[in-house]
Order: sequence, then C-alpha cells, then structure tokens
Amino acid sequence: MTVQRILIVSGTHGNEINPIWAVKQFNKEENKLKNGIEYEYIIGNPIACERGSRYIDADLNRSFNRGKNHDQDKNSFYEIDRANFLVDQFGINGSKPCQIAIDLHTTTANMGTSIVMYGRRFKDFCLAALLQSKFGLPIYLHEKDKAQTGFLVESWPCGLVIEIGAVAQNFYDPNIINRFLILISSLRQEIDKLKNKFIELPKELVVHIHKGSIDYPRDEKGNIDGLIHPERINQDWKLIKKGDPLFLDSKGIIHKYDGDQLIWPVFIGEVAYKEKKIAMSYTKKEVISFNNQWVYEFESL
Amino acid sequence: MTVQRILIVSGTHGNEINPIWAVKQFNKEENKLKNGIEYEYIIGNPIACERGSRYIDADLNRSFNRGKNHDQDKNSFYEIDRANFLVDQFGINGSKPCQIAIDLHTTTANMGTSIVMYGRRFKDFCLAALLQSKFGLPIYLHEKDKAQTGFLVESWPCGLVIEIGAVAQNFYDPNIINRFLILISSLRQEIDKLKNKFIELPKELVVHIHKGSIDYPRDEKGNIDGLIHPERINQDWKLIKKGDPLFLDSKGIIHKYDGDQLIWPVFIGEVAYKEKKIAMSYTKKEVISFNNQWVYEFESL
Repeated sequence: MTVQRILIVSGTHGNEINPIWAVKQFNKEENKLKNGIEYEYIIGNPIACERGSRYIDADLNRSFNRGKNHDQDKNSFYEIDRANFLVDQFGINGSKPCQIAIDLHTTTANMGTSIVMYGRRFKDFCLAALLQSKFGLPIYLHEKDKAQTGFLVESWPCGLVIEIGAVAQNFYDPNIINRFLILISSLRQEIDKLKNKFIELPKELVVHIHKGSIDYPRDEKGNIDGLIHPERINQDWKLIKKGDPLFLDSKGIIHKYDGDQLIWPVFIGEVAYKEKKIAMSYTKKEVISFNNQWVYEFESL
Repeated sequence: MTVQRILIVSGTHGNEINPIWAVKQFNKEENKLKNGIEYEYIIGNPIACERGSRYIDADLNRSFNRGKNHDQDKNSFYEIDRANFLVDQFGINGSKPCQIAIDLHTTTANMGTSIVMYGRRFKDFCLAALLQSKFGLPIYLHEKDKAQTGFLVESWPCGLVIEIGAVAQNFYDPNIINRFLILISSLRQEIDKLKNKFIELPKELVVHIHKGSIDYPRDEKGNIDGLIHPERINQDWKLIKKGDPLFLDSKGIIHKYDGDQLIWPVFIGEVAYKEKKIAMSYTKKEVISFNNQWVYEFESL
C-alpha cells in the first residue's frame, strides 16, 4: 500500500459537534505521523461550526460536484468555494495529496454507529469490510439517487463516512464522543495492519443498499402533517413489511407501508433532512462476496 | 373560582415542536369550552416556528419585561412586539383576558416531565401542587436571577411552564408528544375539579429552588473547552456533592464541584443555553408546607 496521507474530516456539518471534539484529541503533533502515514485532521466547514449551523449557504456534503463555474455567479456559495479549497489542498492532485478521506458525522436518528459508502468502489469495500469485521457495523450503501449527489468522500480515491446517532444537533454527548475516539483509533490501527498485510478480510459483506426516500405526509400548504409512527420511531435498520405503520397524521390516521418489497429504513426522522423532504430513507439488504480485487485496488492506492 | 379563560401556549421557542403538535390536537372547536372555561390555544412565536429557530431577534421567553418603550428604537425586536401583542390580546386586561397561562416547552436535557415556576406566587403553588400530587412531577422554582427575567407566564396572574425532555430541537418524538397530550388533558380535568372544589391538595410540596448556573470551562478565546462529564450527563435532578465531577476538558482534566452545599442540577447540557453561558443550573431542595391561602388565592382568580 502506497498510502501516504489520510484526511480525517469533522464538522462538515457545523452543528455536528461531537466528532469535532473527538478529532481535537487526535490533532496533536505526536499523532500526525503513524507508521509512515501522515494524518491530516481538518474541520470541513469552520464558519458553520462557529455559528452552530449545518451550513452557511448550502449543504457542504452535497457541494463536491459543482465545479468552479459558479465563480461567474456573484452569489457564489461559501460551501462550493470551501469544497474546491479542500480538494485543491487535500485532493489526490492537491498540494498535500490524501489517498483516503474519512468524514465523521452524527445524526439525530437512532442509527447507532454505522458506515456510509457512496457507490461500489472496491477500495471503499476493502476499508468498510475491515470495520464491519472488527465492530459488526452496519453499512449503508448510497447509490443512484440523482436528488442527492456531491458527497465529500466521492472526491477522494477512497473514502467512507462514519455516522453515529442518535444525538441532538449542537449537544455534546461524551458517550458519542467516546465512540468516535474508539473508531478513529481503530481505523488507524487497521490501516497499519492493511499496510503491513497483517489482515484477513471477511468472506462477505452485508450492506444496506439505498433504494429511495419517503417524505412526511403534508397538508395542502405543504407543511408536515404526520409524525413518525410511535412503532417506527428510533427503529432504524429494522425491517418494514407491507401494512406496517409509518406515520401518524394530525387527524389520527395511520399511514402504512404498502409496498410488496421488504425494506430496511435509515435516518428515521433525521432533523436535517426535513428540508430535503425526507422522513426516512429505505434500503434493501444485500450480501456481497469478498473479492480479491478489493485488496489489490486498496494496495495500489 | 372565577377563571373564565385559560391560555395554552406552545411554540414560544420555534424549535420546540412537539408541544405544538400536541396542542394542535386540542385546538378544535369542541375543545374550546369545557365546564364554563374557555381555552385559548396559541403559538407563541409563529415566525420562529416557521423557520425552525428558537427565536428571530431575541428569546421570546425573556422578552415579557421590556415594556413598549423600545418603539422609539428603529431596531425593535420582533419578540418584544410579539410579547406585547400577546399581553394586549390575552393578558388579564387584554381583549380576551386569560387568568391562567400554561407555557409548554421541551429541553435537550434529560429532565423528564417537570414543572417550572417563577417566584412564589400562591396561585402557582396551588396549580403546581395539583400536578405534583397527580404525577409526582419535580418542580423547578426559578427566582432571584437577575440575568434571566421576562418570562411569559409572569405576565399572567397565574401560570406555569411544563418542560419535557430529553428531545432534540426540531425532532418530532411521538413519545414526547404523548406526554404533552396526557398532561394537557389532565390539566383540564384538574382545573375542573378545582373549580368544583372536588380536590384535596397534598400537605407539602417538594421544590427545587434555583440557586445559580455554571458555565462550561472555556479556552482563552472564550470557546467552550469542556464536556459535561460522562458521569454527569443526563443526570438532571441527581444530587451533586463536593468532589463530584462536572466537566472533562480537552486536556483530559476533570473539573469537580468544590462547593460545600449539596446541589441538584437541572438543564444539564441544554443546547439553547450555551449562548447564555449556562452548562447547567443548580438548585437546592426545599419542602414547602401546604398553605390554605394557596387555594383562596387560586379561587379568587
């Protein structure tokens, strides 16, 4: 493995403050270099962090595919400039090129600790398999959703999101921070092992493939008119079958799932997704067999 | 009891959305009049609610003592105008005079369901005693804090805050909503009983008297440099004694409580109080004996 530099990003969303605290614990001179790999710890969206808001003009974690043409637009978004800066600085052709990016997030949904992958890059599978094998973490594989593109880690040759919840925005929770500390520490160890070929990957990977999202029931004015049903709230990753309740509207009517496919929900009730008209996303479960190519590609990084 | 009209307020803070939903369930023609008492259900800060923010210019629940002089100021606060409007409309000398105001709030702190009183008004004790006796709710009595004044319910002859948590801002939690539904419903029943003198009040009231607030440890720039200690987080209402840990700073140093008095903390880690430089408030416990005057004054409302 020729990985020389790894980017660890926290605060891509300015109101997800627990990973920022955790990363601060690592961002010390003695932690920068480990086993020949340099770690760059950066804050994704520092101005949003100062303000305690998710973003200033636009979601930074949807801004990595806008290119630089927006410069012609006087109303250029802060986040597009920031995305370009991060790629210019730490991208694979940047001034401090990083081969891997790890982006740390929290959610108000009860997802536990999970991995989010974007598309089916072999290098990502390799890294995700390591973490799933070590901690049994669920993997949410996001792909083929035209409404949601431009994620940070897609701009690096290899990268994952670590998503931990439930925790409120702007709320420091020492238990959540502790989970990030353990995870960052393990990730550093596992990457060392990979580098030294001391590792065996599992025979298969269980992934939850993104299939779509469901909006809240809404009234004639477009306002949300439905709660996540009491039987559904906090039940992320738990199977939903035809007839299961999804929402309870203000008239007391239960809105049920009426699809024939079994689905597994994620990001149930995530506060930040209301503006995206997402009450929850849903996935199907898939088992992917280990492929030696994952390791070859990872090693060629 | 001559109470003719009761004001039920939700959305005094625009990002505390669960009571708004609960109140909507009651705000129907058939619920307006009960046993000769008219209920007014209103949203405290509708524009903040639309935006999902706590307030627009200033905290509405600290804006009820500003008077109308601010009109001379071109930069008048939306919330001061709103406070004046609410008093003009529903205050005791307003166009639809209400004798009692109940203001419904949520907190990100793990307070459970609790009652907040402002000062030691006998009428408030009477109402609080009813609720404590029925549900065993803890009471936080806020008084003598010059840094925090201008609370909504203080502008009515009798009034309480109901505070329920932990729940994230802008997150609909059907379990939290259910607690509000039960509480509003019980409050209506208890007030009927009081009106018909069918009620006996308990011999004493246990209250937690506000004594002060503690800020986070901060770095030289004034930024927060300490987490609520893992042993303290979510431990609202639980006794703190000398030597108990309060915070954990970024250097790993534990900040301990070094007072000699026993204290009981509330609003531990409340997100909205960071800007007020409050990491937690603390109280002392006091048992107040029942006083017949409470009922007399309540009956004279």
